[in-house]
Amino acid sequence: MYSFRNDYSEGAHPCVLQALSRTNTAQTCGYGQDPFCLDAAARIRALCHAPKADVHFLVGGTQTNLVTIDALLRPCEAVIAAHTGHVNVHETGAIEATGHKVCAVPSPDGKVTCEMVESVVRAHSSEHMVIPRLVYISDTTEIGTVYTQAELAALRRCCDANDLLLYLDGARLGSALTIPGADVTLPDLAALTDAFTIGGTKNGALFGEALILTTPCPRFRWHMKQRGAVLAKGRLLGVQFQALLKEGLYFDLARHANEMAQQLRQGLESLGCTMAWDSPSNQQFVILPDPVIQALQDGGYEFETDHPAGPDRTCIRLVTSWATPTQAVDTFLQDLAALLPTP
Amino acid sequence: MYSFRNDYSEGAHPCVLQALSRTNTAQTCGYGQDPFCLDAAARIRALCHAPKADVHFLVGGTQTNLVTIDALLRPCEAVIAAHTGHVNVHETGAIEATGHKVCAVPSPDGKVTCEMVESVVRAHSSEHMVIPRLVYISDTTEIGTVYTQAELAALRRCCDANDLLLYLDGARLGSALTIPGADVTLPDLAALTDAFTIGGTKNGALFGEALILTTPCPRFRWHMKQRGAVLAKGRLLGVQFQALLKEGLYFDLARHANEMAQQLRQGLESLGCTMAWDSPSNQQFVILPDPVIQALQDGGYEFETDHPAGPDRTCIRLVTSWATPTQAVDTFLQDLAALLPTP
Amino acid sequence: MYSFRNDYSEGAHPCVLQALSRTNTAQTCGYGQDPFCLDAAARIRALCHAPKADVHFLVGGTQTNLVTIDALLRPCEAVIAAHTGHVNVHETGAIEATGHKVCAVPSPDGKVTCEMVESVVRAHSSEHMVIPRLVYISDTTEIGTVYTQAELAALRRCCDANDLLLYLDGARLGSALTIPGADVTLPDLAALTDAFTIGGTKNGALFGEALILTTPCPRFRWHMKQRGAVLAKGRLLGVQFQALLKEGLYFDLARHANEMAQQLRQGLESLGCTMAWDSPSNQQFVILPDPVIQALQDGGYEFETDHPAGPDRTCIRLVTSWATPTQAVDTFLQDLAALLPTP
Amino acid sequence: MYSFRNDYSEGAHPCVLQALSRTNTAQTCGYGQDPFCLDAAARIRALCHAPKADVHFLVGGTQTNLVTIDALLRPCEAVIAAHTGHVNVHETGAIEATGHKVCAVPSPDGKVTCEMVESVVRAHSSEHMVIPRLVYISDTTEIGTVYTQAELAALRRCCDANDLLLYLDGARLGSALTIPGADVTLPDLAALTDAFTIGGTKNGALFGEALILTTPCPRFRWHMKQRGAVLAKGRLLGVQFQALLKEGLYFDLARHANEMAQQLRQGLESLGCTMAWDSPSNQQFVILPDPVIQALQDGGYEFETDHPAGPDRTCIRLVTSWATPTQAVDTFLQDLAALLPTP
Repeated sequence: MYSFRNDYSEGAHPCVLQALSRTNTAQTCGYGQDPFCLDAAARIRALCHAPKADVHFLVGGTQTNLVTIDALLRPCEAVIAAHTGHVNVHETGAIEATGHKVCAVPSPDGKVTCEMVESVVRAHSSEHMVIPRLVYISDTTEIGTVYTQAELAALRRCCDANDLLLYLDGARLGSALTIPGADVTLPDLAALTDAFTIGGTKNGALFGEALILTTPCPRFRWHMKQRGAVLAKGRLLGVQFQALLKEGLYFDLARHANEMAQQLRQGLESLGCTMAWDSPSNQQFVILPDPVIQALQDGGYEFETDHPAGPDRTCIRLVTSWATPTQAVDTFLQDLAALLPTP
Repeated sequence: MYSFRNDYSEGAHPCVLQALSRTNTAQTCGYGQDPFCLDAAARIRALCHAPKADVHFLVGGTQTNLVTIDALLRPCEAVIAAHTGHVNVHETGAIEATGHKVCAVPSPDGKVTCEMVESVVRAHSSEHMVIPRLVYISDTTEIGTVYTQAELAALRRCCDANDLLLYLDGARLGSALTIPGADVTLPDLAALTDAFTIGGTKNGALFGEALILTTPCPRFRWHMKQRGAVLAKGRLLGVQFQALLKEGLYFDLARHANEMAQQLRQGLESLGCTMAWDSPSNQQFVILPDPVIQALQDGGYEFETDHPAGPDRTCIRLVTSWATPTQAVDTFLQDLAALLPTP
Repeated sequence: MYSFRNDYSEGAHPCVLQALSRTNTAQTCGYGQDPFCLDAAARIRALCHAPKADVHFLVGGTQTNLVTIDALLRPCEAVIAAHTGHVNVHETGAIEATGHKVCAVPSPDGKVTCEMVESVVRAHSSEHMVIPRLVYISDTTEIGTVYTQAELAALRRCCDANDLLLYLDGARLGSALTIPGADVTLPDLAALTDAFTIGGTKNGALFGEALILTTPCPRFRWHMKQRGAVLAKGRLLGVQFQALLKEGLYFDLARHANEMAQQLRQGLESLGCTMAWDSPSNQQFVILPDPVIQALQDGGYEFETDHPAGPDRTCIRLVTSWATPTQAVDTFLQDLAALLPTP
Repeated sequence: MYSFRNDYSEGAHPCVLQALSRTNTAQTCGYGQDPFCLDAAARIRALCHAPKADVHFLVGGTQTNLVTIDALLRPCEAVIAAHTGHVNVHETGAIEATGHKVCAVPSPDGKVTCEMVESVVRAHSSEHMVIPRLVYISDTTEIGTVYTQAELAALRRCCDANDLLLYLDGARLGSALTIPGADVTLPDLAALTDAFTIGGTKNGALFGEALILTTPCPRFRWHMKQRGAVLAKGRLLGVQFQALLKEGLYFDLARHANEMAQQLRQGLESLGCTMAWDSPSNQQFVILPDPVIQALQDGGYEFETDHPAGPDRTCIRLVTSWATPTQAVDTFLQDLAALLPTP
């Protein structure tokens, strides 16, 4: 049975593996200073129209978040994030472990708004309180929603007005940029944020996140090293991002994941299921009766449960990826249809 | 020209790459709980005769050191290490960044002795001082030397007598275990240390360190996650260690690296060169006239300089690996011979 | 004009000052190991019926909170606190600066309930999340409310059932223990919490918090020293607590503060003012029209504003203390009466 | 018997106590923003000829060191200190607990020289190593020695040349500034260091260190609060420093301590005793036969042992203070003379 547990259930897209094999015997220096990384960074700067941006490659998302946020903040400074933000709930306190408080704000759709930001800023008025200094957002969000260009531009203005940095966690950025009607581009992100990431792990790489710093962050490589975030064979990151960025593969993979998700969603809605959030991206959250969920699991399907949605109903998360076959979606929908009570 | 800069200049041994390709499309859960990791961990427990050991897979050495040491220590506790110890000099203060002092002791050969340990323990006698609690050693050491079983057993007794933990950084453990006459085995390490690592990065893997915990360390996976040290596609570590441990490949690769190093050393000594340390392992430290070093570099050779060895002489480090061809060593020695002044 | 800004606006109660003068020329060892501290600790153990408790004296509240919480927790463990909890909002991220997340829960009255605790515990179910391990409560709370014995006993059972420590910040414990009808005693606190403090700073001392640890916390003095929380002339803390605990002075002072607060409250209510919270203790929160507040401040009165309570009304905090004269309360009420619009 | 254990064995100088009594009933705001602190800070700025310096008052030395150093450094930056430096050996790893490595250099006399600083700077050349950024010195040093103006000026130049901050821990600054022939003044310190402290605890205050920041350190009060280093009744620090700085009391007290130390030293030398270090200040280190030391202790004398000085001899530390009576020194010397073997 196909697993809809996440978008990193398989290894890498074949092109990525081939690139690793093809370059395997070349000798390079370590730690991300090799020609592959330099070239991949140059490509990213070009794609972002950000010739002066500082580009670094890291292995994982939590690692990238903690190194970047710690490097950008001074000791008493804090992060503003949605309650659902990855740094707030799913990184085992990684940000606090570097000494910084996360000021979490409730958000109905996983997105942070100017109002939320300003409410935190207003509440922190004295030396007895932390200094909110960085707004953390994720795009797509943890519940599948996506920022519009207007929303990001408004956040930028709000950050400028309040001396705040804006950091966008793009672990699933591919999905965000390729939903039909998306109006945000890489150059937009470079122009509107102080730092953002292009996630490889969840979009076809074995692993890897590219960090684009558009604000100065001195000695960033020292920060990486101190947190154990410099890969000895850093070339592996450069080679993978070269492969992903070649001829738009990265975007093609993300578009496929989105299409599979919409196929899934339309099927679920046709079956009368309720979606918990309105997600245009590759994570779908659907509410199902508990016995149906159990039957799907008994049948071998894998997915995560997200939250209880009533006394006998639960919201589950179904994730599609570059590797999801359309047939797997069809089969799942058929199997689900057979389990659902006749309306 | 061949690069003797380090033992992680290339990608991975072909068997490792093939294993990654072969398993690429399998869907697994993430974070190192997959069947590949479970199997690799079981193999390691068997090889170590340590059925109860806790085995974890991490991406890099600094990461492994900082997570493990922080997880094993309480806040006021400190590390004892040789001045040359990797955690003391080459990890950008990673241990201190987790709050723990490194008490460094001078060592003539990179190894820590009971006398050194006890001198630190004796000097820390009150609540105004940190509490030495963990002895960090590396094998091979940073200057290529190797511990004997007797030395490790003595350290174990010293640690027991002083309520200290013994942690061995095995970034280059393959080399240490396969030098001719080596009398230390994996079961010895499991019996004599509280934690040790089997380094993959420097012996044929793309990346990866296996950590063997023989002392209880509750919630270790939480510690890993908090430090960004859990790989999403953890399977990549399991697959690589499976490949390396199959039919002794790991040891064969290390043995080759050692042989290349001894070929290099014998050639250097035949040429009348002075070795800075008596290293039986895959790092050789040789003192050469500065003009000769410059000429080698001009000729395209790559290596690191270690320390000045006089007004016009410098100690350089030459590292061999599983990937070093015997021909590369021969060529280097011939090229060097042509540069050295006739005796 | 009298300042109702806080309960630490003056120096110390005369008995405290006299004790400091009387003992001034005695030579003692430093760091809290002197006869005065030993005696004060013994008195506290006796008052608490806790012969085995570990008693330490620290200078301030934030210091005590951060040292104690950090000493009791392992790295990935977190604190549960009310949103209004001092450690959550008013200590500049001191807990996070030691690496620990504060999981804040909304509370209508500043108190933490079992339901709140269990909701946090339930939400933290995997290694991707912190481990809730310590419940922080304050008594009196930051908004003047007070725990009953039944509430504390329920929290104790909840903590036991969930492997949680219970820590009570008693910065204003004197006030809590002496409100009319209070059913909590020092022995109750020693029996029901793992650690609690008896605050001196806000009840007549120059400074000083006594920490009573009823759960083992090895090497606590090392933790204190590491955080700069060991007073060189530790005797000053012992001498002050001796003076405060002699013949019940500590409780007499707190009772007076409470009486002044109730006199204030009754006066405010007689004037038709609305209290924001139902506080039986020495902090009163009253909602007043903004022009009235301005007029009071113009007249020289000092107090803190707590929160907006409508478009043209604000909640202010009035704090009484051991030093508040009854005449000051009367005068304030008269002056306020003259400012309030005739009903 | 008189205790020579340290210079904080008694309470405070009577003038300090009187000032605390005299101001006891005044109501002020808290946290060091009161008129007493503002006035004391102004006096210090005037004494230092540093009208723009930022002056803060903290309770203790370790606290001051850790808050200041952490506030001045970014995460990967490190401290250079003598091996004997207080931050290196006697603060239970307080600096490392804030995440910063202390790079300790051996020093024969407890002082740091330009050569030592530069050797550390040279050794830290890559992103795999910490960034030396602050030189910590203490004056008087931990072994009683004192910096000359020329030495401080040389360090300043060395720091400027290497982008380093210079921080002077003046826990015993009074003693350093008042030794006969001292050529360093408060204005010198303000001109030559980026930050220094004027220690009150060891020179007549109940407690208190004044920190003078001549380099910008934004949000320093936030840093203080986060580390629990803001005293609620901050006025106590202002009042004490006012008293100490009035009519040169601070310097008179230190001068007396120095005179008692020299009386002690001359007596010891007359008795044929060997001094371990050449200390002109209020700490004297003398080597005595172990049986003599035992006999002194049996007779009720208190002092600290510093280090073994041979198989049957030990170096002890004798500290004088503002409170040491000349008679106490005479009696000690007489008692010692009776214990020493006839030459």
